[in-house]
Amino acid sequence: MAVDGTDENNLEQGIYTKDAARLGKNGRRRRSLSDLSSSQKCGAWASHFQRLFVSFIGADWIYLMLLGFIMAVLSFTVDIFVDLFTEAHSWIYNLADSHVVLQYLAWVTYSLFLMCFAAGFANMVSIQATGSGIPETKTSLRGVMLQEYFTFRTLVSKVISLTCVLGSELPVGKEGPFVHVGSVCAALLCRFMSLFSGIYKNKARNEEMLTVGCAVGISCCFAAPIGGALFSLEVTSMFFVARNYWRGFLSATFGAFIFRLLPVWNRQEETLTALYATKYRLDFPFDLYELPIFAAMGIVCGFGGAFFVYLYGKISLFVKKQKAKNSFLMKNCFLYSALVSVLISTLTFPPGFGQFMGGRLTKKDSLISFFDNRTWSNHGIVADFDNDDHLAAWKHPQANVFIILSVFIIMKFWMSALSITLPIPCGSFVPIFVIGAAFGRLVGEGLATLFPDGFNVDGHIYHIVPGAYAVIGAAALAAGVTHTISTGVIMMELTGQINYTLPILISVILANMVSQSLQPSIYDTAIRIKKLPYLPMLSWGHREKYNIYVEDFMKRDVRYITLNSTYRDIIKILRSGNLKTLPLVKSAESMLLLGSVGRVQLLGLLTQRMQHLREDNASTMPVRYKVRFQTSTEESASASTAKPLKSALKKPPVDEEEITSVYDSGLNLKKFFCSRPEIKAMEDDSDAEDDTILQEIEEWEEQQLVEQVTFSSCKIDPAPFQLVEHTSLHKTHTMFSVLNLDYAYVTSIGRLVGAVSLKELREAIEDCTPADGVRLRPVLSTFRDRGVRGTTTETIALHQLLEHQISR
Amino acid sequence: MAVDGTDENNLEQGIYTKDAARLGKNGRRRRSLSDLSSSQKCGAWASHFQRLFVSFIGADWIYLMLLGFIMAVLSFTVDIFVDLFTEAHSWIYNLADSHVVLQYLAWVTYSLFLMCFAAGFANMVSIQATGSGIPETKTSLRGVMLQEYFTFRTLVSKVISLTCVLGSELPVGKEGPFVHVGSVCAALLCRFMSLFSGIYKNKARNEEMLTVGCAVGISCCFAAPIGGALFSLEVTSMFFVARNYWRGFLSATFGAFIFRLLPVWNRQEETLTALYATKYRLDFPFDLYELPIFAAMGIVCGFGGAFFVYLYGKISLFVKKQKAKNSFLMKNCFLYSALVSVLISTLTFPPGFGQFMGGRLTKKDSLISFFDNRTWSNHGIVADFDNDDHLAAWKHPQANVFIILSVFIIMKFWMSALSITLPIPCGSFVPIFVIGAAFGRLVGEGLATLFPDGFNVDGHIYHIVPGAYAVIGAAALAAGVTHTISTGVIMMELTGQINYTLPILISVILANMVSQSLQPSIYDTAIRIKKLPYLPMLSWGHREKYNIYVEDFMKRDVRYITLNSTYRDIIKILRSGNLKTLPLVKSAESMLLLGSVGRVQLLGLLTQRMQHLREDNASTMPVRYKVRFQTSTEESASASTAKPLKSALKKPPVDEEEITSVYDSGLNLKKFFCSRPEIKAMEDDSDAEDDTILQEIEEWEEQQLVEQVTFSSCKIDPAPFQLVEHTSLHKTHTMFSVLNLDYAYVTSIGRLVGAVSLKELREAIEDCTPADGVRLRPVLSTFRDRGVRGTTTETIALHQLLEHQISR
Repeated sequence: MAVDGTDENNLEQGIYTKDAARLGKNGRRRRSLSDLSSSQKCGAWASHFQRLFVSFIGADWIYLMLLGFIMAVLSFTVDIFVDLFTEAHSWIYNLADSHVVLQYLAWVTYSLFLMCFAAGFANMVSIQATGSGIPETKTSLRGVMLQEYFTFRTLVSKVISLTCVLGSELPVGKEGPFVHVGSVCAALLCRFMSLFSGIYKNKARNEEMLTVGCAVGISCCFAAPIGGALFSLEVTSMFFVARNYWRGFLSATFGAFIFRLLPVWNRQEETLTALYATKYRLDFPFDLYELPIFAAMGIVCGFGGAFFVYLYGKISLFVKKQKAKNSFLMKNCFLYSALVSVLISTLTFPPGFGQFMGGRLTKKDSLISFFDNRTWSNHGIVADFDNDDHLAAWKHPQANVFIILSVFIIMKFWMSALSITLPIPCGSFVPIFVIGAAFGRLVGEGLATLFPDGFNVDGHIYHIVPGAYAVIGAAALAAGVTHTISTGVIMMELTGQINYTLPILISVILANMVSQSLQPSIYDTAIRIKKLPYLPMLSWGHREKYNIYVEDFMKRDVRYITLNSTYRDIIKILRSGNLKTLPLVKSAESMLLLGSVGRVQLLGLLTQRMQHLREDNASTMPVRYKVRFQTSTEESASASTAKPLKSALKKPPVDEEEITSVYDSGLNLKKFFCSRPEIKAMEDDSDAEDDTILQEIEEWEEQQLVEQVTFSSCKIDPAPFQLVEHTSLHKTHTMFSVLNLDYAYVTSIGRLVGAVSLKELREAIEDCTPADGVRLRPVLSTFRDRGVRGTTTETIALHQLLEHQISR
Repeated sequence: MAVDGTDENNLEQGIYTKDAARLGKNGRRRRSLSDLSSSQKCGAWASHFQRLFVSFIGADWIYLMLLGFIMAVLSFTVDIFVDLFTEAHSWIYNLADSHVVLQYLAWVTYSLFLMCFAAGFANMVSIQATGSGIPETKTSLRGVMLQEYFTFRTLVSKVISLTCVLGSELPVGKEGPFVHVGSVCAALLCRFMSLFSGIYKNKARNEEMLTVGCAVGISCCFAAPIGGALFSLEVTSMFFVARNYWRGFLSATFGAFIFRLLPVWNRQEETLTALYATKYRLDFPFDLYELPIFAAMGIVCGFGGAFFVYLYGKISLFVKKQKAKNSFLMKNCFLYSALVSVLISTLTFPPGFGQFMGGRLTKKDSLISFFDNRTWSNHGIVADFDNDDHLAAWKHPQANVFIILSVFIIMKFWMSALSITLPIPCGSFVPIFVIGAAFGRLVGEGLATLFPDGFNVDGHIYHIVPGAYAVIGAAALAAGVTHTISTGVIMMELTGQINYTLPILISVILANMVSQSLQPSIYDTAIRIKKLPYLPMLSWGHREKYNIYVEDFMKRDVRYITLNSTYRDIIKILRSGNLKTLPLVKSAESMLLLGSVGRVQLLGLLTQRMQHLREDNASTMPVRYKVRFQTSTEESASASTAKPLKSALKKPPVDEEEITSVYDSGLNLKKFFCSRPEIKAMEDDSDAEDDTILQEIEEWEEQQLVEQVTFSSCKIDPAPFQLVEHTSLHKTHTMFSVLNLDYAYVTSIGRLVGAVSLKELREAIEDCTPADGVRLRPVLSTFRDRGVRGTTTETIALHQLLEHQISR
């Protein structure tokens, strides 16, 4: 199983032998080191330590803790800069208090400048940084890996422009982008670690790590490890693997720990507490009579969440349509962002309309004030709390607190829905939290005004806690928008109080039920609008509609290799596409599927052949040709070993790239085997070359290529995933989803008749779905569905089956 | 797709068509109702409401809320009775305070009586009620459904004897048994609901509901919905389905809500709070310097947890060995239980040794005292707290609090490990919680004594909170024993405070890491000791060892039907086993696999045939015979319709049982078709029957059975799950695990060559594992493993592949 010299490698990398071939070079280098050190004791120790180091680096927990640490530092740094930006904003604003117009200009232009910079930076450095990033992460984890979304460029673009956007006080959040940033960090860290340990070259594992990245992203935003781990599982996967759950927890816990530790070290805080720590009473959190109100809030938030998603979808589609029409406004990405920025900051201008909607508070300040322990209202008028700037924002001489809260909710609702359609990095989570909290505070304050005496239980008087209503409202609205339960858990961790578990969970579940029956989640809506290659779920309730079998949508024109394939055939096939594996059939006539051979294996065969040619066939080679050939191959060999390690960060599959790049450039086939360009050069050098010699060379080349491949040294997967023609679309979809397959071969009585990849499957599903896009199913509706796992028995009548048998 | 008359059924049951055939009867009954009602308006409405009712009942959330409600009421009732028992115990104990011997007798015999009753009841009513039940549930969810563990008898036995055991104050918990009780309730509720809606006849769905049952069980024990949902996923599944997560949350939340609502209604509590609500300070939960201590506690608890599992395993094996030797002590299950009960209650006798270990406190009282807000010790001596019985138990004139706590920990450690090996319903979770909390309290009190002045942060003095150490210790030790993270979440919900999230998670993760590297979890140990048919995980690290392919362990002697099969063949096959589906091949010579046919389908064919015979072939039948035959079939037809619905609760697949029971009783084949016994009776009646007539009848019978089956009306699954001979054990295992398969056919170039069921797979895996039993892998070690999902590429060399090709 192990390629020569990678034995010690294999041991440390568990069963990650998939990439063993690629490691060949590293392994050889290491072995040559230990050979050398057998004479030197010191060297032996060095090699021992090196091996220990590799095995240490290969351990999951090192990776997970590193990831948590990096994300925590990133999140903390972003927070610091955002604070700096907002402080500067209020400083400039206060500086210009001589005249209201000056103040207005200071207020608006500051935001405008930051917004334009953010939009420009994101669009110039990496366009993939715009938007939330959760839809793309979700797609990469289930549908197709969107490689360009996980580059260092995207990371830089996303982090820097996100900081500016948040600093501009637009009602967008940090959480969605941080899920994306977490995934990018996870992907980049995998690539970096792959320099030290082969375990990180396994693609399946690295994709799993993206899920962990999501968990850490949330965890480092809200200091909510449990909620983060759960959110990542809920949002990204249909099927959880116990392993990922563990990894998520470990990394998220460490990330949250560092994220909360940094402010303590920075002397901003005394100790590790929740981000928005609340201090509601512990002995009597709520009365039974309040429960129906919490439940009603959940239902209202469900409707609100669905409406938010609807609004977002409408605005997005409108913007998209305008863009397609290529109107002037949409031509320039700056202009749209700038316009929205000016609109929003004009409306929130504190001396203007902003005074009716707490305009001068940032999102953070608003949340703190909503979660406040105290009851604001005394029959509608905010009581005087000394030296508390946050609460004063809700006090207005002409309007009572209910009006201000209502205006705040309505204005922020459409502003948030509008803002998250901008071509900038932006999340919808935190603005939704703020709106939900405002709604909860409104309800709470209303009740506190209606029942100023609170509840009398056994002689104790317990007043209503409007802050708790804000907590519940925030959780429920977020649940309604994202269709997750974990928002409730995040809320508990965020506020540091768990004694509202039951009201929170009840309202979150109700919000989910209502919202899921009305609209897809905001992420699924974004996937639909952006037309991302996400493998949609089938709506099982109407499976009669999907009366489609594999034979109806499989790709019939499958490239295959046979036992009689020549080197020429293989090169042709390898050039014709970038399939990871190729089916091996007995012969082109019988088409009996023997197994599948990896692309890497075939490339290995070609390399072997090259070496073989150089060593043995030297005698049969034309003389002049031989000299050049040997020179060139030796050169290329020395060049490849001298390749700096650094480049691995950019191009992980070094060996493959090396070989394929040779193919893809012009006269590649022959160059690869026979270094033809050298011959050409030779031709140019010597003016009058003999035609016969050239003829001879070409014939010799032909011979080399026409020869049959010997597969004896090739590793063959004897049992590639196979389907039969009659497998239904449903069953295929289930298997692809659950087993996370990329492709499967279709056989009929052992004969290869076609292949199905994610692409064909997706197209087949999309063909059955309404024309207005992919229909994405809400999670809750799965409540009614049967087990996707388990043997799905789908039946046809015999005469149909026999028709097929006969037609074969 | 739909069987006649079940259309409306199908609509409401989503895609649960698997059992459509079985529903035939119900559907027909309903339709006949609607036919009738077409003349009567009122009847139409009735049928409409009936359909609405069926669709309502079929909705998941109804089921889930019902399950939560039932479990909450059960849990609350058990708690009430346990409280009654313990109150009675202390009443009797106090009554006998005239003399210490009398008191001792009262103390010991009370426990002894309850224990003996519990052991006797459990062993007599249903032996399946003994033990925790989590290992069995785990096995049923992954390996083989242990039907006898999910009966009403087991439920009654478990609940009643559990109440007595808990009342006897043995150091065992309620949580393990309640996971089992939850699953049993889920299974029984499915059966009950199946009377109203066909959706509940789907086996795969019902098995998924068992997971929900586990979540509700935990949730109703600890009022911990989030922890319960997570624990059930962690313990029972390797692969989570998003659907189950939702279901678990919904049901667990409702269960916990009702469970906490009942005491409020019962006027025991004022409002819904946590079960062991704590009131630690919110502003400064802990100092940074305390974190290393929390981490160290996690590591110590990891070792402690592993040692507990080791101890439990050793005791269990010892007891098992003794039982096998059939020694007198072990012959009688009472004697062992009684002896342990006497030993433990003697040691805890408060005026005796019990005074050094808080003997008079129940588990609940101990936990309350450990989680207490106050610091007990003032340099080792418990301060005087007025009117607090619980804390007074830790005060002793001769010994300081550290000695008492240490004695408590040591004694309870072995007592708990011993108690959970008894043949009674018992869980290990709560005793472990108590021990962990005691350990935490010990550490906390020690620190409070070392640093009596606490921490001075920015002029504020913060004292150490030993109660928080108890919380963390409890979570960490429970994590070490059960190998889960959710114990931390359960702990937070149990105490109603979340501001120790980070310390709890850190210590829980560390405890897991240590413990998992030393021992399997307590549930896996129990599975190993009880030799339950659990599909073990393969240790991927050494997959070279498992160089085994499907062909090496598949069952080659597969029963199949061909297109030319006669009715006789089918009857023979159906009698020979109880396979759910049978492969259909083209002919016995070609063995080309066409698909698979369900047992139910074949039974349907036979029933059809019977009706056909009665109606059409009457003319070819010998005369006398015909008369009898018609009478008998009519009788049986009327009998089957008159069958009461009630019996469905006992025997779900009514139709099948009906038919197979006919086969299995003596002269069944012929009786079924031709009601031969009637003929015999006839023979007996008339003395001198003509031999020629009998001959004629037998020949006619032969003709009927030899006739070829027409499969035209039969539903055939055209794509049963297929493997090829070369599929490795690993890959097979992965597919079976992930897709939750029961069986798969093995084909070679389209020809059926064998079949693999869970049984063969398990045996194959066990053959590769060490002789001392199934090797179960810790969860954390999966950290190192590659994706089980994704295409596992296993390769062999060509020559091996071709050898097989040639040998074919």
